[in-house]
Amino acid sequence: MLIHEDRLFPADPGTRRIARALYAHVAKLPLISPHGHTQASWFAKNEPFPDPATLFVQPDHYVFRMLYSQGVSMDDLGIGQAVIEDPRKVWRIFAQHYYLFRGTPTRMWLDYSFQELFGFKERLSEKTADHYFDSISEKLTKAEYLPRALYDSFHLEVLTTTDPPNDRLENHKAIRASGWKARILPTFRPDSVVDPEFAGFAENIAKLGEMHGEDSGNWKGYLNALRKARARFKELGCTATDHGHPTAQTADLTEAEAAKLYSAVLAGKADAAQQEVFRAQMLTEMARMSLEDGFVMQIHPGSFRNHNQYVYERYGRDMGADIPRPTNYVDALHPLLNKFGNEKGLTIILFMLDESTLSRELAPLAGHYPCLRLGPPWWFHDSPEGMMRFRELTTETAGFYNTVGFNDDTRAFLSIPARHDVARRIDCGFLARLVAEHRLDEDEAFEVAHELAYGLVKKAYRL
Amino acid sequence: MLIHEDRLFPADPGTRRIARALYAHVAKLPLISPHGHTQASWFAKNEPFPDPATLFVQPDHYVFRMLYSQGVSMDDLGIGQAVIEDPRKVWRIFAQHYYLFRGTPTRMWLDYSFQELFGFKERLSEKTADHYFDSISEKLTKAEYLPRALYDSFHLEVLTTTDPPNDRLENHKAIRASGWKARILPTFRPDSVVDPEFAGFAENIAKLGEMHGEDSGNWKGYLNALRKARARFKELGCTATDHGHPTAQTADLTEAEAAKLYSAVLAGKADAAQQEVFRAQMLTEMARMSLEDGFVMQIHPGSFRNHNQYVYERYGRDMGADIPRPTNYVDALHPLLNKFGNEKGLTIILFMLDESTLSRELAPLAGHYPCLRLGPPWWFHDSPEGMMRFRELTTETAGFYNTVGFNDDTRAFLSIPARHDVARRIDCGFLARLVAEHRLDEDEAFEVAHELAYGLVKKAYRL
Amino acid sequence: MLIHEDRLFPADPGTRRIARALYAHVAKLPLISPHGHTQASWFAKNEPFPDPATLFVQPDHYVFRMLYSQGVSMDDLGIGQAVIEDPRKVWRIFAQHYYLFRGTPTRMWLDYSFQELFGFKERLSEKTADHYFDSISEKLTKAEYLPRALYDSFHLEVLTTTDPPNDRLENHKAIRASGWKARILPTFRPDSVVDPEFAGFAENIAKLGEMHGEDSGNWKGYLNALRKARARFKELGCTATDHGHPTAQTADLTEAEAAKLYSAVLAGKADAAQQEVFRAQMLTEMARMSLEDGFVMQIHPGSFRNHNQYVYERYGRDMGADIPRPTNYVDALHPLLNKFGNEKGLTIILFMLDESTLSRELAPLAGHYPCLRLGPPWWFHDSPEGMMRFRELTTETAGFYNTVGFNDDTRAFLSIPARHDVARRIDCGFLARLVAEHRLDEDEAFEVAHELAYGLVKKAYRL
Repeated sequence: MLIHEDRLFPADPGTRRIARALYAHVAKLPLISPHGHTQASWFAKNEPFPDPATLFVQPDHYVFRMLYSQGVSMDDLGIGQAVIEDPRKVWRIFAQHYYLFRGTPTRMWLDYSFQELFGFKERLSEKTADHYFDSISEKLTKAEYLPRALYDSFHLEVLTTTDPPNDRLENHKAIRASGWKARILPTFRPDSVVDPEFAGFAENIAKLGEMHGEDSGNWKGYLNALRKARARFKELGCTATDHGHPTAQTADLTEAEAAKLYSAVLAGKADAAQQEVFRAQMLTEMARMSLEDGFVMQIHPGSFRNHNQYVYERYGRDMGADIPRPTNYVDALHPLLNKFGNEKGLTIILFMLDESTLSRELAPLAGHYPCLRLGPPWWFHDSPEGMMRFRELTTETAGFYNTVGFNDDTRAFLSIPARHDVARRIDCGFLARLVAEHRLDEDEAFEVAHELAYGLVKKAYRL
Repeated sequence: MLIHEDRLFPADPGTRRIARALYAHVAKLPLISPHGHTQASWFAKNEPFPDPATLFVQPDHYVFRMLYSQGVSMDDLGIGQAVIEDPRKVWRIFAQHYYLFRGTPTRMWLDYSFQELFGFKERLSEKTADHYFDSISEKLTKAEYLPRALYDSFHLEVLTTTDPPNDRLENHKAIRASGWKARILPTFRPDSVVDPEFAGFAENIAKLGEMHGEDSGNWKGYLNALRKARARFKELGCTATDHGHPTAQTADLTEAEAAKLYSAVLAGKADAAQQEVFRAQMLTEMARMSLEDGFVMQIHPGSFRNHNQYVYERYGRDMGADIPRPTNYVDALHPLLNKFGNEKGLTIILFMLDESTLSRELAPLAGHYPCLRLGPPWWFHDSPEGMMRFRELTTETAGFYNTVGFNDDTRAFLSIPARHDVARRIDCGFLARLVAEHRLDEDEAFEVAHELAYGLVKKAYRL
Repeated sequence: MLIHEDRLFPADPGTRRIARALYAHVAKLPLISPHGHTQASWFAKNEPFPDPATLFVQPDHYVFRMLYSQGVSMDDLGIGQAVIEDPRKVWRIFAQHYYLFRGTPTRMWLDYSFQELFGFKERLSEKTADHYFDSISEKLTKAEYLPRALYDSFHLEVLTTTDPPNDRLENHKAIRASGWKARILPTFRPDSVVDPEFAGFAENIAKLGEMHGEDSGNWKGYLNALRKARARFKELGCTATDHGHPTAQTADLTEAEAAKLYSAVLAGKADAAQQEVFRAQMLTEMARMSLEDGFVMQIHPGSFRNHNQYVYERYGRDMGADIPRPTNYVDALHPLLNKFGNEKGLTIILFMLDESTLSRELAPLAGHYPCLRLGPPWWFHDSPEGMMRFRELTTETAGFYNTVGFNDDTRAFLSIPARHDVARRIDCGFLARLVAEHRLDEDEAFEVAHELAYGLVKKAYRL
């Protein structure tokens, strides 16, 4: 077997027994996936996934960054190719280097899919590469492996995508029109029209104005266009925005200052510092709009995007070369929190890539401000050790109820059940330790386990 | 039962057996509480505590910050009210939200008091709220629940308060005059007269001069007044100073520079940077005076005080909105350490709110400089996980003997035994792991456990 | 017994059984020590070590920094004395304070040597001090305690020293000429000729030019001299360089800029910022030369050297007063990585003193760039807890194969087997936990254990 029924539970037998019982209580709960990067088109079209390499290797920067770090060429992996020329060759390279993933969450997610979805019992390796390739290829053409069938079999209750304001959301409309009862919702991600460093920023804003019948060349028109875009998202069930900024900086400019800065930014005359202030101000503007339309805000700061220039120039964005930086929240969020931090109608979910902030800044902030909640451990920390540290570093100050359960945050659709399963097991393991150490009563642990797996995420994201 | 006799011990049965034995060795040792915020007036007057809400909710920012973070209004909790209008109503709100504290040290401290002091066996909840309220209210009027009786039943050997230089210490004198044999001592906390940003700074300094017959309008007179204030504290048994600065910055100005800066600061003409230098210089001045009078220095840096302006303006200081910031010690302490760091007669106890400094800066500094000792994990880190991380992150570089045992640092008098009990259990659990992993011999673990619970704190604070 | 056969293994019995099996598999593998600070002269001359104090106390800043932190005078320990006047007196002070090392790796290393090399069974203490002194003194004169005999009995396969470019490597030549078959190799450590703050910088460069027949007064001649020095090291088996910079800053200047900066630096006209840029540029130059000659680069940043001025002025460098600082890698390495980061022929091994960088920066960087590898936990983190945290914080993002096994990094020759033993035990304990938690298959754990103990270090250092 590739995965064991007791995987990720604490080794101590007494604690493991408690963990097992807690897990049994939550293992079958529906999945809520409010922050993902799957593509609505998959569900709109419901066509078969093309081949194993295109499914597992090409879209997953967790996978190819590890291979690249050990000298495998991106070209040999089909990265940057519209259609992979020789998917079997890519798959063989992947299989041959599968040992590199020992001890990583990627390995755990993949093994879960391989066993639970495709029925493999022998480990992927050079030896089994072709068997895997042929067997997966064959299954992908079957009805039960089509995107909609998988969505159903995964017990997904809600799945959201991530979409720019200029997206017409045709695929979401098509899903609705199709009569299929799944709840696939858009998320409003305005980076492309609020971050002056985003490629095509000015054009994106021009299009934004056009699409919404506003003159986005001035501050008021721009804000109105954003409001209308949000309303359009809301009609299709959207409940949240998402903001991927380099820092958590916020600002509280006067309207005149903001309008003036907007003109400079739009004209390309703002320097790096002014661009940062603009992004900062836009977080505050988004909070203001959230108070109007009820959208939950998600802030994902702290990544140095496209650190590897060569890779960026040759292969583009999201190629595994985004590297976290030290992140400050306590000073950066101060302007926004002083403006809206005491509003009970506002929910802001904070994510982090810098674990030193968890006990120092994030838990103390979330344990005080009514609007703040802590998102689950993100990205490199979406892992057993990362999740365990997250609970150890935040629970004592922020409690469980200022956190929001689990997000899978993935482009790899097939990994969704595996990722939720890891989170449920780790949370149950953490709770089991609290029970074993008599820090939490067992009846309470069952309640909390349910909240962490299902209740908190629904409430936080207003789903 | 609310608390279990094996609580906080490691789950592994073999390790737990060792932890139990170590704990049995130290559980009944007297409590030394050299850094607290209880009020001397309680012991001078020895009057009953008024009611459960005023005792447990109103003074405890750990409690109401959590309730506030989940949408409970501060007004509804009686915060900012001189006398709580309807304490039963406050208590019911607290009881109804008691589940929020699951997994937090606050819950553990409260349950300890509820069971050990008041005899409750059923958990606090909406259902038991009135029972708790009535039963506690009744007991508070009894002789054995008066402050002095509690002091004795807690097995306190020393309890210190925290007092500004302008305090006449009348309550301390009254305790002495009463003939009661308890050892309740003041601690010299000069923030109000060394921090230019402290409310009423100039007035405080004028009063300081007046009280001590010195012209505090000039640098020399100011320093003399401080010296005399320290001497006055010393007469009442004070052995330590405490410094709550935003950063750990120290300075080593010439006398002329210092005098000039003092004039500017006192005249309100110093900018933020100069105010910081003034605080920095005052740490060095305090060290110089400590070499004269033997006071131990405690430095508590790294908090962004009153982060929430709305809460500060409406309810004042210490309302749960102080948030830690990244803290640097290695550069900040350099001026002071180069001046006095090699003095064997000096003891400086460093506290932290930024755990990333523990293995990086604090353990290496304390493992070298003869004057430095590490204070116990402070505030948000005064918790089982925080204490365990503290030992894991400091012991290998600084050893046990450069730490100073436990401080409860509390305003909540009734939580003192619970807090010391948590520290003793966690330290015994840590030592038990070292023994179980054959990293420390068992006979040595018993010696160290005694030092951590009792010996080191007496020696470090010169009590 | 001083050390237990199960030391450092996890306490849970099931996990311990797995750890024991893994350890049995790697315990006897030869030691590869590619980054040490032993002296080639010991092996060239093969004379007896003089006495216990000179062997264990005087050269080991881990030892005397702890004693100093607790008030022992450096003079009383013979620090700074060319020959210790009264080694027995020093030894007695050390023995009397041996309890200070409880819970530290130093204690574990010493106990290992005391038992395994010298056969002691009773703990070092005031009582046993003289017995230890006499017994060790006697043994040191015997043939099996001479440096070469110890090298052989330690099962060392490779041992490298650390040498400045101006070293003529006479001792290395003498070892080769002696016909002794040991593999003792130099490492190229150019700090003395690339760091403008290094004592004697300009003289060192003048000598560098002279030794290699180049005019080191200009940029080209300087670089040529460095190239020739590297070639000279390579002839004696050197495979690596080592760089002990205050920060990880790198630069990518044009040749004209670099030449101009070099002139300013050499003339002593560069300010602190320019000196930093020069060191930064020299890392990039060293990378360029590594692409030519195949040397592996080691970068050790983040230490505030000689923090204690009094100690530095009185006793010199390396006296236990180097204190870590926050370190940034993600921005600092960007210039070098953009220049050479995608070169498969280059290997750069990064070390750290700031653990907050492990999951935030170092694992993400090493999990992407083909040239990067993570060095083992260094210095204060060369410890059981430090090693365990290192694996917990890096494995999930960088895997095992982007790390390089273990380095002992020691001046204390006798501690080498103990240090490797600690690393092997901790790595096996970590792997055992992964197996017990079903996160890694047992057959894979055996393979990885072998790689961590032996395979990866050979490959990374090209030995």
